[in-house]
Amino acid sequence: MVPASDPVMTRSGVREGEVPFAVDPGDRDDARLAFIGHLESPWRERGSCPRNMREARERSQDGSFRARIDLPFRPALDGLAPGGYAWLLTWLSQARRDLALQMPRHATVARGTFSLRSPVRPNPIGLHLVRLVSIDGDSGTLVLDALDVLDGTPLLDIKPYLPSVDHAPDDLS
Amino acid sequence: MVPASDPVMTRSGVREGEVPFAVDPGDRDDARLAFIGHLESPWRERGSCPRNMREARERSQDGSFRARIDLPFRPALDGLAPGGYAWLLTWLSQARRDLALQMPRHATVARGTFSLRSPVRPNPIGLHLVRLVSIDGDSGTLVLDALDVLDGTPLLDIKPYLPSVDHAPDDLS
Repeated sequence: MVPASDPVMTRSGVREGEVPFAVDPGDRDDARLAFIGHLESPWRERGSCPRNMREARERSQDGSFRARIDLPFRPALDGLAPGGYAWLLTWLSQARRDLALQMPRHATVARGTFSLRSPVRPNPIGLHLVRLVSIDGDSGTLVLDALDVLDGTPLLDIKPYLPSVDHAPDDLS
Repeated sequence: MVPASDPVMTRSGVREGEVPFAVDPGDRDDARLAFIGHLESPWRERGSCPRNMREARERSQDGSFRARIDLPFRPALDGLAPGGYAWLLTWLSQARRDLALQMPRHATVARGTFSLRSPVRPNPIGLHLVRLVSIDGDSGTLVLDALDVLDGTPLLDIKPYLPSVDHAPDDLS
């Protein structure tokens, strides 16, 4: 998945300092997912995609951002409030899954995958806090304030954002 | 999954007012997961399990809480800082997946699954913000401040908690 022109890439597609897992998580079948829809964004290539939701919001004037919910799952949108915030869980299907230590962009030392928010992880599930600008349950369309994922990214879940459980207690004190 | 003695349960295991999806998400195979370990908690039955992390923290003196990371995935813990907060993503394997509208405990009206934090959802992925009390990379053991999941729950991912992207912008203003 790393471009062949990457100057520090070794032959196996792993950058210097990066370490793969002893097993490939992509070979496992411990549980199975159902895609409930997909996301629309102006980002078509990873090089142009914002790296997180903060950067995505700064660039939100660059395009439109929508979730399209597949027909069978639309009734489950009932009760979601426009204007509020929600978590989206996505399946980052273009990310490799086999790196234990990886080299973030602009970093000089490789770090453990679980200490990073990189899409490269054993289960490439993205976690994104978005504002629900509008919700049309009939067409299954949610307009979002911004997105930091590639156009077409599959959607796994929508959860309401609850500061009472989603903030560290220290933040609230 | 609903106890047979539930007074408002219909014959199909669905409570009055609850509506199943037209398809069963449990039959889908759109992507596959790798369990990276499991969680240990004192909660052995759903009736005694705290319903969210706020309630879990209030009851944290009731037991000990640990994540056990399987051997191949332990190198990916490098860089996680004890004392800090992290997201755990779990696979809530005991939850049914087929309800579009569901009746929360103590509620009188059924609500859409995506407007609730219930474990019952098309992809039963739990999202839990925990404090990493200690981290032993060699044994793959993380001591946690509290947990709101059943003992033995499979673990999918650990992500660092970053208020800059994990708080709604309105919270930060």
